Amino acid sequence: MAYGPLLVWVACKPPLPTSMMHMLPLESIVVARDRMTSYIRHTPVAPPPALRGDLHPALRLKLENMQVAGSFKARGVFNHLLQLDAAHRSRGVIAASGGNHGLALAYGAWRLGIPATVYLPAHAAADRERRIAAWGAHVIRYGEAWDDAHTRALEHAAAEDLYYVHPFDDMRTLEGQGTLGIELLADVPEIDLALIAVGGGGLIGGVAAALKQARPGVRIVGVEPVGAPSLTVSLQAGRLVELPAVHSIADTLSPRAISERTLALAQRYVDEVVLVTDGQMVEAMRWLWTECNQLVEPAGAAVIAAIQGGGVDLGRSVAPVAVICGGNAAAEAVFSSYTQA
Amino acid sequence: MAYGPLLVWVACKPPLPTSMMHMLPLESIVVARDRMTSYIRHTPVAPPPALRGDLHPALRLKLENMQVAGSFKARGVFNHLLQLDAAHRSRGVIAASGGNHGLALAYGAWRLGIPATVYLPAHAAADRERRIAAWGAHVIRYGEAWDDAHTRALEHAAAEDLYYVHPFDDMRTLEGQGTLGIELLADVPEIDLALIAVGGGGLIGGVAAALKQARPGVRIVGVEPVGAPSLTVSLQAGRLVELPAVHSIADTLSPRAISERTLALAQRYVDEVVLVTDGQMVEAMRWLWTECNQLVEPAGAAVIAAIQGGGVDLGRSVAPVAVICGGNAAAEAVFSSYTQA
Repeated sequence: MAYGPLLVWVACKPPLPTSMMHMLPLESIVVARDRMTSYIRHTPVAPPPALRGDLHPALRLKLENMQVAGSFKARGVFNHLLQLDAAHRSRGVIAASGGNHGLALAYGAWRLGIPATVYLPAHAAADRERRIAAWGAHVIRYGEAWDDAHTRALEHAAAEDLYYVHPFDDMRTLEGQGTLGIELLADVPEIDLALIAVGGGGLIGGVAAALKQARPGVRIVGVEPVGAPSLTVSLQAGRLVELPAVHSIADTLSPRAISERTLALAQRYVDEVVLVTDGQMVEAMRWLWTECNQLVEPAGAAVIAAIQGGGVDLGRSVAPVAVICGGNAAAEAVFSSYTQA
Repeated sequence: MAYGPLLVWVACKPPLPTSMMHMLPLESIVVARDRMTSYIRHTPVAPPPALRGDLHPALRLKLENMQVAGSFKARGVFNHLLQLDAAHRSRGVIAASGGNHGLALAYGAWRLGIPATVYLPAHAAADRERRIAAWGAHVIRYGEAWDDAHTRALEHAAAEDLYYVHPFDDMRTLEGQGTLGIELLADVPEIDLALIAVGGGGLIGGVAAALKQARPGVRIVGVEPVGAPSLTVSLQAGRLVELPAVHSIADTLSPRAISERTLALAQRYVDEVVLVTDGQMVEAMRWLWTECNQLVEPAGAAVIAAIQGGGVDLGRSVAPVAVICGGNAAAEAVFSSYTQA
């Protein structure tokens, strides 16, 4: 499968089914934001001036890598946990995730005193397991891929009547992620373009819904890894497509499929999707480190890679914003190097 | 030399010589801030809530690691460069520094189109040389320690009539660093305690002068490495003392002596000084990474180490602020690990 031009999909807006018109209304996102105010950080936009200004003179970076638990995932998680009934608060919550969603769930459950179980696929990094377990969550290894762990976790949830928190295919999750869009409108009122990385499509779905309803002229650009283009292929096909395999260092951007719900949101609100390579993401990680001393994971740098790689043209934009969505890089080697010094 | 109690010096305010009364007036710091507004970042305070709140419920972190060139040093540097006469702008600037000051000088000179020369001691890390040279500065290796490189750089400056930018013992440097104090008053108007790391004493001197003149009740706490207590020994002796040797992973906090000027400011404005070990600084680096995904160098984490180590009592404070002064950690291993993945 070849990806010649990096810009692989540009929307020709299809007519919207009436049932989708209000599937994620702005009002519900505002309510979600008010619900979680004291648990979630209003993350900063990187302060000007830019160090070099080599990408775009007005480019702003939304540093969501500074969110609690290190990524935007805490937004969706808290929107679930703060609405649980007493029985579920007591019995507990469960999810499958080897990445930021599992860490956010473990943290949120610790913060609210709710028992939590997190399923990890067998290959998930030992460091991730340690960080999730450190918040007191019960960690269970199962299966080769996220999909296996997810299926098993759903069975576990049904058997013990635990509340399952889906990482993207759930309205509460989407409302939570959408709160980042509300913040962007406050941070950069003149915003006219938002660059957002795509994994399962929860972040871009929520944020795009918030931005487009508040300001229809904002251009929404998604960014996926070349090796995990799950949104791109589904948009091209006009229906949900599951990839046979995914290959990317951005593990948090690499489910084999998005969902009907996030596809519908993307069809409605996303203007284009750009693909980036692993190498471009690592170069973008270096740029973020040099530019503003932010160490992020590959997924967090994907939006910068999209600009540097030339796949997205910011030329016409007067106030573009790139969302640095997560920061949980493998930093242990740095601390070890100082300990051994 | 033993350091039993970590809190080794508490001020019994000596009477102030009249000549020192206004050695760093608040007005000159305000002028410096206005001078450099478009070149320096107003760095953010880490957004609440705290992840765990295990240190102090109201503790705020001033993220000066996000300053241009990765540390507060850019403030002093720009306050020099923006006041140069045409002849010095044309001939160039020079300094000796294996650390953040050299990087800030190289960056500032690049930004303003001024030729720059940076002397590095022989043992300075190759990564630092690369980053300084990347901004176009002429790098010269000389001598075993900073003091050797400093002496040689002064001779070079005299021979070619270059402008020497001292990392701490200069009024323009001190005014520049003091601008961080002005920002703190805007960021946390109720501030009643500031924790600040000490190398040559330029940062704590400038910031303490700004804070104490604006709000005399603010408690100023300095933090030094156990292996490089240059301010502590000078305060205890009541005169400038040069250490025979220094040993710390926080290389940017480890000159063998501060200066008469910074000692006088510390005697006037600093309430106590706390010592921290290398191990405590590495643990504090991990805490900052877990707490808000900020990767910083050991010096940047020293203030957190002082709280965690129990050397400073925040109990009576209602609005303590810890200044995370620099972020230029050795991060290359992280990028390499992703490239090899």
